Amino acid sequence: MSRAAHQEANVVRLKRLGIDTYQEPVVFLASSSPVCRSEGWMAQARIQVTHRHKSIIATLSVTTSNLLGPDEASLSEVAWSHVDASDGDLVRLSYAPPLESLGHVRAKVYGARLDSDALNAIVRDIVAGSYSDIDLAAFVTAFAGVRPDAAETTALARAMIDTGERLYWGRSPIVDKHCVGGLPGNRTSMIVAPIVAACGLTMPKTSSRAITSPAGTADAMETVAPVDLDLARMRRVVEREGACIVWGGRVRLAPADDIIISVERPLDLDSGTQLVASVLSKNVAAGSTHIVIDMPIGPTAKVRSIASADALDALFNAVARELGAELRVIRSDGTQPVGRGIGPALEATDVLSVLRGADDAPADLRDRALLLAGHVLELGGIATVGSGCAKATDVLTSGRALAKFEKICEAQGGMRTPPRAAFTYDVRATRRGCIAGIDNRRLARIAKLAGAPRAPAAGLVLHAKIADRVERDQPLLTLHAESAGELDYARTYLAANPQVIALEDS
Amino acid sequence: MSRAAHQEANVVRLKRLGIDTYQEPVVFLASSSPVCRSEGWMAQARIQVTHRHKSIIATLSVTTSNLLGPDEASLSEVAWSHVDASDGDLVRLSYAPPLESLGHVRAKVYGARLDSDALNAIVRDIVAGSYSDIDLAAFVTAFAGVRPDAAETTALARAMIDTGERLYWGRSPIVDKHCVGGLPGNRTSMIVAPIVAACGLTMPKTSSRAITSPAGTADAMETVAPVDLDLARMRRVVEREGACIVWGGRVRLAPADDIIISVERPLDLDSGTQLVASVLSKNVAAGSTHIVIDMPIGPTAKVRSIASADALDALFNAVARELGAELRVIRSDGTQPVGRGIGPALEATDVLSVLRGADDAPADLRDRALLLAGHVLELGGIATVGSGCAKATDVLTSGRALAKFEKICEAQGGMRTPPRAAFTYDVRATRRGCIAGIDNRRLARIAKLAGAPRAPAAGLVLHAKIADRVERDQPLLTLHAESAGELDYARTYLAANPQVIALEDS
Repeated sequence: MSRAAHQEANVVRLKRLGIDTYQEPVVFLASSSPVCRSEGWMAQARIQVTHRHKSIIATLSVTTSNLLGPDEASLSEVAWSHVDASDGDLVRLSYAPPLESLGHVRAKVYGARLDSDALNAIVRDIVAGSYSDIDLAAFVTAFAGVRPDAAETTALARAMIDTGERLYWGRSPIVDKHCVGGLPGNRTSMIVAPIVAACGLTMPKTSSRAITSPAGTADAMETVAPVDLDLARMRRVVEREGACIVWGGRVRLAPADDIIISVERPLDLDSGTQLVASVLSKNVAAGSTHIVIDMPIGPTAKVRSIASADALDALFNAVARELGAELRVIRSDGTQPVGRGIGPALEATDVLSVLRGADDAPADLRDRALLLAGHVLELGGIATVGSGCAKATDVLTSGRALAKFEKICEAQGGMRTPPRAAFTYDVRATRRGCIAGIDNRRLARIAKLAGAPRAPAAGLVLHAKIADRVERDQPLLTLHAESAGELDYARTYLAANPQVIALEDS
Repeated sequence: MSRAAHQEANVVRLKRLGIDTYQEPVVFLASSSPVCRSEGWMAQARIQVTHRHKSIIATLSVTTSNLLGPDEASLSEVAWSHVDASDGDLVRLSYAPPLESLGHVRAKVYGARLDSDALNAIVRDIVAGSYSDIDLAAFVTAFAGVRPDAAETTALARAMIDTGERLYWGRSPIVDKHCVGGLPGNRTSMIVAPIVAACGLTMPKTSSRAITSPAGTADAMETVAPVDLDLARMRRVVEREGACIVWGGRVRLAPADDIIISVERPLDLDSGTQLVASVLSKNVAAGSTHIVIDMPIGPTAKVRSIASADALDALFNAVARELGAELRVIRSDGTQPVGRGIGPALEATDVLSVLRGADDAPADLRDRALLLAGHVLELGGIATVGSGCAKATDVLTSGRALAKFEKICEAQGGMRTPPRAAFTYDVRATRRGCIAGIDNRRLARIAKLAGAPRAPAAGLVLHAKIADRVERDQPLLTLHAESAGELDYARTYLAANPQVIALEDS
C-alpha cells in the first residue's frame, strides 16, 4: 500500500451525532473502520482532524456498535465549529504528534519558571484547541501549587493577549473596573459603567459568565439586555454610549482564558498567576489603560486574609506596570453577599432598584458601586482625589446613570425585564437571635443547586444581613427555582447545612 | 410534583451505543429528556448512575440528535461493567454531590502533606470510579511537583493495598523482583522467575502492560502464554509451579494503580511517591515479603542521576520497612536498551533465546537476569551472599530454567510462539563510525509509532550497541510493523530524528 493510497484511506465522511462534551474536542470512529484498524488507534488516542485548511486535535472515542459506518466519523459539538465542517463533509484524520509545548507544562510541574517562549507555545496550543482536558488540568494544577512570579504572570498575560483579538481606541484614558470575585451579588459593574460613561469616560466592559459562582455579570446583564455581541457591535455600542456591558466569550479577547476556566471550574482551583493574567489580559486586550480592581476580603471570599490581599495587590500592580496600564486595587468588605439577590435575574433586580433610586434599594450595593465609580473617575482624571464618590453620587441621584444604562441596553439590542421564578420557598429562622455570620461559598452552592446561573430566574433572596436581629419564624431567605427538582436540591442541601446563616443569641 | 414522583421521573432505560471512552465513565442523555431538563443538567455535569445496588459517578455528555429517546440514557463501555448493567436495564440518575475527598487533593495542590485518612478517602473514591479524568490529572500533577515524603508514600501504598484483593501464602519468604522502568527491552522477570522457582522459591509475579513504554512484561509474556488470569487461577499456577508471570490488571491487586496510570501515561508525569506506592502496593498485596528492585540509571532512563537514585533508593527502603517487607535496590546500567528487540514479541524472542542458551542470545539481557536472580536467591535465603549469581547461572545453563518456564506457560494456559511482523524496514548507517549514544526515550517512541505494544509483533530490533563500530550502509536497526501506515510513522519520525543513534568518527 503506497503512502498516497494510505493517506487517501484516511479520509472519512462526517456524520452528525449531536454529542455535546462541553469544551473538549472528541472524534468518534468505528472500531471496524479501516482507518482505526490500519493506524492502530485506540480510545483516548489524540487524533488530528483536518477539514480544508482548518484542523484540530481531538481525543478518540471508539464506537463498537452500528452508530458509525466503517467510512464515517463524528465529532463532538465543539469540534464541528473548530474545523468549520457540516454533516457529510470529508475530513482527513492523522496521528497527532506529541505537543512540544506539553514539555513546558511538565517543566512547570517539576518547579521551573516558564519564559515567554514557553508560555506563548502553551497558550497558542490551548487556543488552537489542542490540549485535552487532562493536559489543561495539569497546566492549571501546576500553577495553583506555586507562589506567583511577576515576570511569569506578565508573560502569561501577554501570551493570552497575543492569541486573541484586540481593541484600539486611539485615545486615553480607557477605563475598566474588575472584581476578583468570590462575593455573591456584587454586581457593581452594571452601575459603575453607566455612571462613568455619563461623565464622559470610555469603559468597554466585557464580563464573564459564572465560573464557580451562581451568576457572572454577563449572566445578570443578559436578563436585562443582550450581551452576546461580536467585537464590531461591541465597538459600535461603546462609540455611541461610552460604555457597554457584554459577554467576553464572544468577542475573543484573550480567548485562552475561557478554555482554561472550563477546567479550573470543576477542579475549583485558584492561582494568583492565572487570576491576574486572566483579568489583565482581558482588560488590556479591550484597550483599557486605567483599571480599578475591587478586591473583597473575607473568611469565605476568594481573598481570605490581609497577607493574601497584599500578595495579590503587589502582583496586580507589578504586572499592570509591565503591560503599561495604571491600576488601583480597592480592598472591600468580603464578609457577606452584596445586595439581596443571588442569581442572574435576582441580582439584576437589585441593580435596577439602585439605578432607579427605589426606597428599598440595597444600600450596600449602592455604596460599593459609588465608591468604585468614584475611584474610576479619579483614576480616569475627571475627578480630583477625594471628590470622585461625591461626583458619582450626583450622577446616580440625578437619574443620569439610569438614563445612560437604558441607552446602553438599547444599544446592545433592547432593554427587557428580568424573569421571575415559578417556584419559591421561604427559609425561616428556627429561633430568635442575631445573624453572626454568612457562609458565602455555601450560599453560592445553594443558589447553584436551585438552578443558577443556567436558569436565569433561579437563586435566592437574602432577607437578613450580619448583625441583624431576627425573630423565630422570620424569613431568612427565599429560594427561587424554575423547576421543582432544583428547589428540592437546594432545600435538601440547606437542611443538611443549617450553619450557612449562623444565628447567635442576641 | 411530589418528591416521590420526581425521583420516579429520574429512572431511565439504558441503551447500548457502544462508545469506548477508555477508563472514564460517561453517561449520555438527550437534551430533550425530562430528567436533563428538570434537573438542569449540562454537559460535563457529574451524575450518579445507580443500577440495583451498584452505582457510579459519570461525566455527562448531552446528545442533541435522535440517538437517544427522552426516556433513554447510555453509558460508555467502562461504565456498563461498573454498574453491572445490560442493554434495556433501568437505572436511576441523580445529582452527584461534590466529592469530599477532592478537598484533600486541593490541599495537596496547595502544599499540604496528606495523612492516611485523606489518602484512604481519595483512593476509595478513585477505585469506585468517582474521579473524572480532570480530577485524576490534578491528583497526579500535585504529587509530581513535590519532594516525596516517606510517611505519605507509605499511607498511599497502604490505601492502595486496602482497596483491592490480597494474597496470603502462609509461608515466608515470598520473593519478587521489579524494575522501575525506563529501559526498553529489560525483560528480566521472564528469566528470573523460572530460575528462582526452579530453586524452590515462590515468586507470584504480576506485571503491567506498557505504561509509557513500547512493551510491559505482561505484553511480552502474552506473546508466549496467556497472562489474563484471575486471582484464583494465578494462585493455582503459583502453588503448582512456584511462580507465575501474569497481568496485574485482572487480579485486582491494588486496582487504584491502573486507574491512576491511565492519566499518568498521557501526561507523561512521574513522581517518586506514586512510583514507590505503585510498586510496593502491588508486591505487598501479592503477599511478597522479600523484594529486589532493579533500578537502571542513565541519561535517558527513568532515573537519570545518582542523586535521584539515592533519593528513590531511600524512599523504597523506608516505605518497604513500614510495610514489613525486606527490600534490596540493585542499581544497573541504564544507558542503552537491554537485548535486541523492543516490542512485545521481539522482546519475548530475546528472552526465549537466553533461556534456550542460543549462541546468539543477547549477553546483556542474560547477564542482567543472572545478576538479579542471584540477588533474589540471596535475599530469599537460599544462596549465601556472593554465591547467588553462580547458582542462577547453573540453573540457566543446565536447562532447568527453560523447563520451568515451559511449565509456567503451560500452567497459565499453554505455550505459543511469538508472532512475526509482516512489514520490516532496515535503517542503515549513513556513514562509517562508532556508536556514541542511544536515546532510549526516542527509541521507545519509534517502537510505539511502529505499533507496539498494541500490535504485538511491532517494534524494532537493534543491531548495534554503544561503542560498536559500524560501516556505511550497515544496518543499525530493523523496524517491524503490522501495517504499512505504522511502518511509515516510525520511518518519518526516525528521518526527522537521526540523532536517536549517535554516530561518532571512530
